[in-house]
Amino acid sequence: MKKILLIGAGRSTYSLVEYLKSHASDKGWHIVIADKKLEWAQKRAGDHPATEAIAFDIEDDISRVSAISRSDIVISMLPAHMHIPVAIDCIGLGKHMVTASYISKEMEELDERARKAGVILINEIGVDPGIDHLSAMKVLDSIRDKGGKMLIFESFTGGLVAPESDDNPWNYKFTWNPRNVVLAGSGGAVKFVQEGQYKYIPYHQLFRRTEFMEIEGYGRFEGYANRDSLKYRSVYGLDEIPTIYRGTLRKPGFCRAWDVFVKLGMTDDSYVLENSENMTYRQFTNTFMAYNPHDSVELKLMHYLNIPQDSVIMEKLQWAGLFEDTRIGLKRATPARILQHILEQKWMLKETDRDMIVMYHKFGYELKGEKKMIESSMVTTGEDNNNTAMARTVGLPVAIATRHILNGNISTPGVQIPISKEIYEPMLAELEEHGISFKEVEKEYQGY
Amino acid sequence: MKKILLIGAGRSTYSLVEYLKSHASDKGWHIVIADKKLEWAQKRAGDHPATEAIAFDIEDDISRVSAISRSDIVISMLPAHMHIPVAIDCIGLGKHMVTASYISKEMEELDERARKAGVILINEIGVDPGIDHLSAMKVLDSIRDKGGKMLIFESFTGGLVAPESDDNPWNYKFTWNPRNVVLAGSGGAVKFVQEGQYKYIPYHQLFRRTEFMEIEGYGRFEGYANRDSLKYRSVYGLDEIPTIYRGTLRKPGFCRAWDVFVKLGMTDDSYVLENSENMTYRQFTNTFMAYNPHDSVELKLMHYLNIPQDSVIMEKLQWAGLFEDTRIGLKRATPARILQHILEQKWMLKETDRDMIVMYHKFGYELKGEKKMIESSMVTTGEDNNNTAMARTVGLPVAIATRHILNGNISTPGVQIPISKEIYEPMLAELEEHGISFKEVEKEYQGY
Repeated sequence: MKKILLIGAGRSTYSLVEYLKSHASDKGWHIVIADKKLEWAQKRAGDHPATEAIAFDIEDDISRVSAISRSDIVISMLPAHMHIPVAIDCIGLGKHMVTASYISKEMEELDERARKAGVILINEIGVDPGIDHLSAMKVLDSIRDKGGKMLIFESFTGGLVAPESDDNPWNYKFTWNPRNVVLAGSGGAVKFVQEGQYKYIPYHQLFRRTEFMEIEGYGRFEGYANRDSLKYRSVYGLDEIPTIYRGTLRKPGFCRAWDVFVKLGMTDDSYVLENSENMTYRQFTNTFMAYNPHDSVELKLMHYLNIPQDSVIMEKLQWAGLFEDTRIGLKRATPARILQHILEQKWMLKETDRDMIVMYHKFGYELKGEKKMIESSMVTTGEDNNNTAMARTVGLPVAIATRHILNGNISTPGVQIPISKEIYEPMLAELEEHGISFKEVEKEYQGY
Repeated sequence: MKKILLIGAGRSTYSLVEYLKSHASDKGWHIVIADKKLEWAQKRAGDHPATEAIAFDIEDDISRVSAISRSDIVISMLPAHMHIPVAIDCIGLGKHMVTASYISKEMEELDERARKAGVILINEIGVDPGIDHLSAMKVLDSIRDKGGKMLIFESFTGGLVAPESDDNPWNYKFTWNPRNVVLAGSGGAVKFVQEGQYKYIPYHQLFRRTEFMEIEGYGRFEGYANRDSLKYRSVYGLDEIPTIYRGTLRKPGFCRAWDVFVKLGMTDDSYVLENSENMTYRQFTNTFMAYNPHDSVELKLMHYLNIPQDSVIMEKLQWAGLFEDTRIGLKRATPARILQHILEQKWMLKETDRDMIVMYHKFGYELKGEKKMIESSMVTTGEDNNNTAMARTVGLPVAIATRHILNGNISTPGVQIPISKEIYEPMLAELEEHGISFKEVEKEYQGY
């Protein structure tokens, strides 16, 4: 019997646990689900015979080490910065580990120790990062196998709301950690390379530097750049590529309106607002504008940021509640925390709402003197606000990778991400069985 | 005989050393001038009989302690972050100390130790901070002595170029540490309070949120906000004041054009540009704009930031060299470092150029039911690029404070700034003898 320890039983673990349960009796798995909140773990475990729920504080060394030592493999669905103590224990105790998070510097530094201990530490195997690696590497390898030379690689993912549940002027709802959405892109300039030229976008311009793309059957989307596209050049073996760009998808018009939050300073998480508790949403908005005893907050804002009266931007801001006299009620809150709170009142998925994950890759290459282009895209929608597309696309790759480690198909030790053929081929095939499939289309080459 | 140790012999110490020399024989002073570069110390010392030049590495504990132990008082003109080891030695060795820098947290924490040791650590006694404290406290105290209630306090200082040397479209030259000018305002949101309402400006909007003011005989100026105005409420005893605002002065039009640098991301000091050495100024500008093989950098920039073709902003940018094909030649440089380099080619004071310090305070108050207003301003110009107004206004208060400590007029130990009557009265009187005098004018009250 193999013991799987899952640490963290939040929203994104629904499909992950369903998958593990469905294979448990067949494979002889015992699944221990651990969370700081026992009821969350119990909810995930349900009354399935192969599951066990435990309360678990990651900072309690003794219970952490004891839980890990009793397992064959550990899945950490904790926030990214909390993986390291788990990873160190896994190396020490000779247990494999799976996470959906970006490899941090600290994680990378564990590579040699993991390899010496024969431990597999597989990361970035959720949706983005995760499915993007699998699907992109498949096309990249096929182009290179034919002798093609890569010219352009662009990759975008968006966690959005499905058209049938899309009922607000932003065409957006929170389908993921709201805090991460509010802080997206902050904390440093964006870097990418376009036709061999390095390009840098400061955070405060990020949402005005978007690209548009069309996905058949789903219409038009816009993409803004992710923080650092450059590091994927070496990871994907694209050191010489003249254009590489990774980004996030939204429905058109989202970014221009989000830019207002950025320009006002509402996404700043570095200081606390005086008397945030008793402020209203309207006063919060006004705090970023010049004082005037007569002018309305609306007019000051339109004038300050040069927004026409009849712009759809104002409709979005009004709908979001920026001018409401509602009390914030949060003590010592940063602007970003308050903005998150205001948006959470509007952007939460309703019980019957379906979310949607959209992924889009563009590959430009040269083959025998001819320039060619492939677009690869994937759209998948959730069932409701529990069985979401987000939970499915994050959780299934994690669960499948766990299965492949347990059955020995993935066997190379060390800190790694899923980019080898041996990993992406079986994983993409199995994801397709779960409705997560890519459509690849040849297009006419378009440069800049 | 009293021994004065001056650490740091840079540009801002010209008037400081001249003052010390002129009092040396009379007061029986011996002046030791220390710098990492012996030739700088020697240049300042000249062949005056009371001076001595020494080479001095602040990081060498032994030579630092030995130099301090042989002195009666230490003047530190080092960059702000380097004062602390000197201050700790001064406390340990029972020596007084004078600096022109803002009190850092680390400095503040030395207060109790300094008081126990009977050591005076006087800070913020240059121009801004320094002369602003002296001149503002004088008016504030006089208003409060009459029973007035403060409503508005605004304070602005600018290091500018004198009208007779003003020969460029920015109406500006570097008269101070260029790096600090390039990074001014970066690193966090600006906070102030206006008519009882807290206001916050993110860095990327700072140069679009200016105020205008008129100074008789010198015309119009614009001011942008300093980082944190709020901390001066308690320092100045203005905890209840509804409006407090501290800022920096420029000639009108400067800030709108500087805003272009900010908006492009050119003042970012947090990352290094790829291949900065071989890039041209024009390529540097282009690196912040979208790729296009045909459009000119000029047109892309005007379109990106919505600058009309006939705007004086473009004239300023062109004059600054932003579109020149000149090689940068700096290895692994940040955007801010490169911008500083480009501007240094244009904004350096020529040998015969005169700089100008402008200070402006506005005091709004209520006295016996009547609202009143006082404006207090000071303008002083330099002689040439050596005997600058900057060196005079920074160095003289430091020198005068040193004299008052040595003769016992300033005697309260501890970490402090010059805000008491006992300090500002004699100091303002002596500064006036050196041509640094304030003009106070009663005005009609203007609120918001």
